[in-house]
Amino acid sequence: MIVWLNGELAPAGETRIDPTDRGFLLGDGLFETMLVRRGRVVFLDAHLLRLRHGANAIGLALPFDPARIAAACTALLDANRLADAPRAALRLTLTRGPGPRGLALPADPKPTLLITAASAAAPPAGLSAIVATPRRNNRSPSAQLKAIAYLDNVLAKEEARARGAEEALMFNIDGHLACASAANIFIWDGDRLITPSVDCGILAGITRAAILELAPDFGIEVLEDRIEATHLSHIGGAFLTSSLMGMVPLTRIDGKALPAHPETARLNAAYELLLDAAERNG
Amino acid sequence: MIVWLNGELAPAGETRIDPTDRGFLLGDGLFETMLVRRGRVVFLDAHLLRLRHGANAIGLALPFDPARIAAACTALLDANRLADAPRAALRLTLTRGPGPRGLALPADPKPTLLITAASAAAPPAGLSAIVATPRRNNRSPSAQLKAIAYLDNVLAKEEARARGAEEALMFNIDGHLACASAANIFIWDGDRLITPSVDCGILAGITRAAILELAPDFGIEVLEDRIEATHLSHIGGAFLTSSLMGMVPLTRIDGKALPAHPETARLNAAYELLLDAAERNG
Repeated sequence: MIVWLNGELAPAGETRIDPTDRGFLLGDGLFETMLVRRGRVVFLDAHLLRLRHGANAIGLALPFDPARIAAACTALLDANRLADAPRAALRLTLTRGPGPRGLALPADPKPTLLITAASAAAPPAGLSAIVATPRRNNRSPSAQLKAIAYLDNVLAKEEARARGAEEALMFNIDGHLACASAANIFIWDGDRLITPSVDCGILAGITRAAILELAPDFGIEVLEDRIEATHLSHIGGAFLTSSLMGMVPLTRIDGKALPAHPETARLNAAYELLLDAAERNG
Repeated sequence: MIVWLNGELAPAGETRIDPTDRGFLLGDGLFETMLVRRGRVVFLDAHLLRLRHGANAIGLALPFDPARIAAACTALLDANRLADAPRAALRLTLTRGPGPRGLALPADPKPTLLITAASAAAPPAGLSAIVATPRRNNRSPSAQLKAIAYLDNVLAKEEARARGAEEALMFNIDGHLACASAANIFIWDGDRLITPSVDCGILAGITRAAILELAPDFGIEVLEDRIEATHLSHIGGAFLTSSLMGMVPLTRIDGKALPAHPETARLNAAYELLLDAAERNG
């Protein structure tokens, strides 16, 4: 595997993250995961905008401009022979870089920007989920950032595996549904879609935003709201969204089968057409 | 600076953390910070025990036994010419190591254990603090672990600096006092000490435990409890505790001067004697 680190392409095994990097020591950084279709990064501009907003929020400057990062993505896909693959994944990791001991910000930060590429399998047709123990902290300023701090999500995902399921749903500390371990969620309330609002401590996903925009064009009302746990027992179906998976229906929650809502497939087809159009025009 | 990484001593600049290390990518790891006095690591056993408990909690095995880690600390202090320093700091960082893309645990994890050493200045005589925006998530399973995820704490510390103070106090999501950015807190309620209980989402510090044990020997009642924000406006003083700082009085909270409680100095002297005794017997 070839990676791109601060301007240089090199084999991962010859690339070093400094042992004083604040991403490694303090989780002081952010990331983006992006889908690539036949060499084109899906919604690249939106991902870079979100990364820049997140970086601003934690007082960090992007060390490369968007055009340079886009070129780096292309070069990295080429180097890994993924430019013609139907699907691939890119991850951008931005940290505050090396620093002395302690929490205080380095006087002259040298941020780390790492880009990695990997092949990506087709998304599953459906996923079973459990309601996991960890709660999203919707009262943390970093809850709405794609921060490196994914240990709760790692533990939630492992809890799902241990309980025989594939995904983990996370509620927030106020008892409202937030998200899955690395995806947003939409539930069907009759013929209406509801997704947890941003104040529920979610990361506002780029696929989530696309669905929010797309659904009304297909006559589907969609609402951002708070969703109580009791609500989940009588929903007409649900699906997860993420950049890599797109839209994937939930088949079960805590063992209970969920109905397959007929509009999910229609909306998913529309979303795939949107990606095709973006690919042609990209 | 020489660091110790998975059994090898090497200059930091020649040491590499793999770009796929889950500590760097997901905050999937833990750490310990320890005080060293004249080459002796203070409360080493307690730190290693906490690290092992934390590792168990996240399904990770310590890749080296305690005796080997103790020997590594000694060798690292020697290599950095810190063995005779009155004070130094050691940090152990344990992560789940390199892994493929995604949250799922690697089938055959190869954990990363990094030990770094640094000189440590004498602790300040007092610290001014603000009440910071980020809230500790006391309903997260990782809240009581010394997890790498310190971005909220980094932001809290930076908020303190921006507001002209030195430390940041963090409340939890239920509105109770939790801790400072990297320290526990004790408040004086008359002649009684109160420190936030573990269910407040604190990391149960090793110095905190020492004070809890020491105070009653000096006739000081000490209580673990929930502390409301309103309580802070009429306290008889407060101090922070951490392995590196020991006990440091708070001089101000949000600009308001705190009284210097006469018992703080007596307790601090007793704590220093405890460290001296531990050093002699260690």
